[in-house]
Amino acid sequence: MRVCVVGAGLIGGSLGLALRAHSDIEHVIGLGRRAEPLQRGVAMGALDDWQLEPDVALAEVDVIVLGVPLGAMAPVLRWIAPHRRKNAIITDVGSAKGCVVEDAIAVWGELPPQFVPAHPIAGTEHSGIDAAVADLFVNRRVILTPTPETAELASDTVTRLWTMAGASVVRMSVDEHDRMLAMTSHLPHMLAFGLVDLLAGASDRDEMLRYAAGGFRDFTRIASSDPVMWRDICLGNRTALLEALGAYRGDLETLSEAVASADGEALEAIFSRAKQTRDAYRHWFET
Amino acid sequence: MRVCVVGAGLIGGSLGLALRAHSDIEHVIGLGRRAEPLQRGVAMGALDDWQLEPDVALAEVDVIVLGVPLGAMAPVLRWIAPHRRKNAIITDVGSAKGCVVEDAIAVWGELPPQFVPAHPIAGTEHSGIDAAVADLFVNRRVILTPTPETAELASDTVTRLWTMAGASVVRMSVDEHDRMLAMTSHLPHMLAFGLVDLLAGASDRDEMLRYAAGGFRDFTRIASSDPVMWRDICLGNRTALLEALGAYRGDLETLSEAVASADGEALEAIFSRAKQTRDAYRHWFET
Repeated sequence: MRVCVVGAGLIGGSLGLALRAHSDIEHVIGLGRRAEPLQRGVAMGALDDWQLEPDVALAEVDVIVLGVPLGAMAPVLRWIAPHRRKNAIITDVGSAKGCVVEDAIAVWGELPPQFVPAHPIAGTEHSGIDAAVADLFVNRRVILTPTPETAELASDTVTRLWTMAGASVVRMSVDEHDRMLAMTSHLPHMLAFGLVDLLAGASDRDEMLRYAAGGFRDFTRIASSDPVMWRDICLGNRTALLEALGAYRGDLETLSEAVASADGEALEAIFSRAKQTRDAYRHWFET
Repeated sequence: MRVCVVGAGLIGGSLGLALRAHSDIEHVIGLGRRAEPLQRGVAMGALDDWQLEPDVALAEVDVIVLGVPLGAMAPVLRWIAPHRRKNAIITDVGSAKGCVVEDAIAVWGELPPQFVPAHPIAGTEHSGIDAAVADLFVNRRVILTPTPETAELASDTVTRLWTMAGASVVRMSVDEHDRMLAMTSHLPHMLAFGLVDLLAGASDRDEMLRYAAGGFRDFTRIASSDPVMWRDICLGNRTALLEALGAYRGDLETLSEAVASADGEALEAIFSRAKQTRDAYRHWFET
């Protein structure tokens, strides 16, 4: 299998490192707009070769992985679409799927059977190819959201690819994915960014952050994530995120009212339910 | 120095373990309502001895540490006050200080010069004496909030005690403490409890939590904290917490409006400011 990774960042670089260690992968080429990260990708062993020209890069490629941020998906699709080999499979790594499907329809007019929207649930608050590691996807989940147009063979190939990188692959609908990720990932990022931003604006932020304890550190780690990437995720998954934000703001109003009226019983009920849920599901996400 | 720890929990047990290793400490006695955790405290080396009767426990004690939750502070103060030796220093470990000062005034009528409100900023999402460790306070901060009535000698003695346990001690006013902790600790706990509670009520919570990634795990770790303790912190620090919640809800409204109107520039500005702040202050809380 010959693979082209478009965009040499954390995800593309880590996938390259993982795939190149696998005997079923013949060649991994990097394609991008700038030479520098691609050259670093070759130097660190994530890529066999690199290219700035899609016609050259894609000439003999079986699978194209769009490892670019959501905001770059549409221009990158337009850039590479004319050069994709007939039947070459194309997949992406975007954190929201509805907007990628819309971008694909805008570029192709209709969804090609070789197009498999996908989302590896992995990553750190770091980004860029220098943060890439070969085991980023080991024991992680990759969600495929094949469309009604997607060919079964294409989904199977993308499943094989991510399995080679150590991930376990599941499938769900685009809508289900976007709603779920809005609640468990996009909303928490908003909450952490919002809290740190609030503190950033305080006149005594130095003092406050000096005495912030371990809980604060863990809670806000995700607020160190890439602002441009998260801007694009918010815009890309706008509908589901607004729904999640609305539900959460309602919850926060209930909490505030319980504090204001010193309703200890209500507070304890909310905290207990949260603790029970967190404890019960711990084994699923503490791997 | 002879010390009595009232309440054998995570904080009291860890303090006992740390102090008993120190040559300046002659004796650490545990006092409580139930024998079982106190017996475990002796068995694990956190206490020299234990007592259920305050008159016996406090007969020869120089420093009394109230290692009980905020909600127990008033009844415990009433219970022990008549048996405190003249000039014995008394301090607490509560996460809010204004309410402890109020409890003390209610019990004594006025604040004794030996009373030093304090708050060790340490702890985990676990609680109880079984979670106690000798190094819980090493390199942690302890905030003393002496009142105008507090004698300098009393503050100095409590400072020495926490220094023996490995902590660094700072002083600030009760109000400053409560406002600061509301923002950096109490508010984040509300946000994490609120998020997990929202997910707990979702019909497809199994699915959602199964695909929750590492960011969610870190973000919600504090939602595993003890519900009763946090109920009491919310009630104890009500005014400052409501102020913090109000400011945060305003921030969240701004964020929601930016998402709703697809204002990428505003989103990026908020996220960038948060990331810069989080990154700039990282060294302070990642110790």
